[in-house]
Amino acid sequence: MSIDDKFKTLGLQLPAPMQTANLPFDLYRLDGQILYLSGHVPTESDGSMAKVLGKVGAEVTPEQAYEAARKVTLGMFASIVAAVGSLDRVEAWLKVFGMVNVAPGFKTIPPVINGCSDLILEVFGADVGAHTRSAVGMAELPFGVPVEIEAQLKIRL
Amino acid sequence: MSIDDKFKTLGLQLPAPMQTANLPFDLYRLDGQILYLSGHVPTESDGSMAKVLGKVGAEVTPEQAYEAARKVTLGMFASIVAAVGSLDRVEAWLKVFGMVNVAPGFKTIPPVINGCSDLILEVFGADVGAHTRSAVGMAELPFGVPVEIEAQLKIRL
Amino acid sequence: MSIDDKFKTLGLQLPAPMQTANLPFDLYRLDGQILYLSGHVPTESDGSMAKVLGKVGAEVTPEQAYEAARKVTLGMFASIVAAVGSLDRVEAWLKVFGMVNVAPGFKTIPPVINGCSDLILEVFGADVGAHTRSAVGMAELPFGVPVEIEAQLKIRL
Repeated sequence: MSIDDKFKTLGLQLPAPMQTANLPFDLYRLDGQILYLSGHVPTESDGSMAKVLGKVGAEVTPEQAYEAARKVTLGMFASIVAAVGSLDRVEAWLKVFGMVNVAPGFKTIPPVINGCSDLILEVFGADVGAHTRSAVGMAELPFGVPVEIEAQLKIRL
Repeated sequence: MSIDDKFKTLGLQLPAPMQTANLPFDLYRLDGQILYLSGHVPTESDGSMAKVLGKVGAEVTPEQAYEAARKVTLGMFASIVAAVGSLDRVEAWLKVFGMVNVAPGFKTIPPVINGCSDLILEVFGADVGAHTRSAVGMAELPFGVPVEIEAQLKIRL
Repeated sequence: MSIDDKFKTLGLQLPAPMQTANLPFDLYRLDGQILYLSGHVPTESDGSMAKVLGKVGAEVTPEQAYEAARKVTLGMFASIVAAVGSLDRVEAWLKVFGMVNVAPGFKTIPPVINGCSDLILEVFGADVGAHTRSAVGMAELPFGVPVEIEAQLKIRL
């Protein structure tokens, strides 16, 4: 089954491209076979910032943060399709940098970023989806989003 | 107009290379066509650390932080010239990772890192200057600098 | 002298691979000649998380943090050998991203990450070991580890 078909079979839908309010950067840049993805924040289906804001371990529960990381990932999938036309063009996920907006003392950061890793592996499978990762706690993230993730991928020519 | 000429036309000047006090790392490393730039801090024209120190949203205003991000970027331009001889060798800005030393509750991080993105786009134009970006809030940065930025670029052979 | 021999001559030993408790990511991923290393935490010789936990500048001293960064680096060496069979396969260290779990006000971050840079240069020498670097202060790191470091390297074919 193609990855695009797998995505649909799982009942998932791509959101609209993440809205960046005219900020002076691009959501992605393709250099040869390497696709760079900007830091993505959690978005709703229309590409607007998700409503759940605040620090994980305080206003935002770990469960909400896992879901936020999943929403970030769907937005990254949308950027991949915008960049190269299809999820099937991905040859490898190389690197995921997962940042969590932590309340003081919130240390169980990896399970939050699993919301991203789990979805990548579910959709792309173990071979294509295998990725290196850091999952770390930030002092603040833009506009109070609970999770922000950037990534680098290898694209099939 | 060449990018080097554009740079001069804008009345800009390259600072001396960032002083790193014999720390055991390099400001840049070129691997094939990919140029890696270390985390740069704001520097004055002589390459010394800029005097404005502290947390953005407390000791440092957002306007000062924007200016600090601009100074960081001029230092990165100096590292590019030191690495490959000319700004015209840049084929693409690929990735900018912008880190702001935030006071608790300071969330308007992207406008600070615009001090970097705006200058890149002003000097290099939309095609070469287009870049992916993350703009995030750190708990502390070395010696209390308000902004630190690292980047990856594509170099013309 | 080969780098593997140099490593032994220095009396160093590779730890077992870092234990990741079934977290859904890989310690490394090789794409062509680029080796991506996940964020590594300090580990003991059996690959388990080192016992020194907490914030640098509070529970953890700068000296302990330097030692923790060194342990992280030995774990990264183990991942390199697991990925490509030998330290001699490294053609260049390209990029080191060093993250310190800081207590409020702890700003002398670069000397901590020197625990990594110093060991790289000691083992690999100035040519292969030269690397770009950022050394920054995080709000929290997974499970309270004092240091986490990720890296990208160039591998000899």
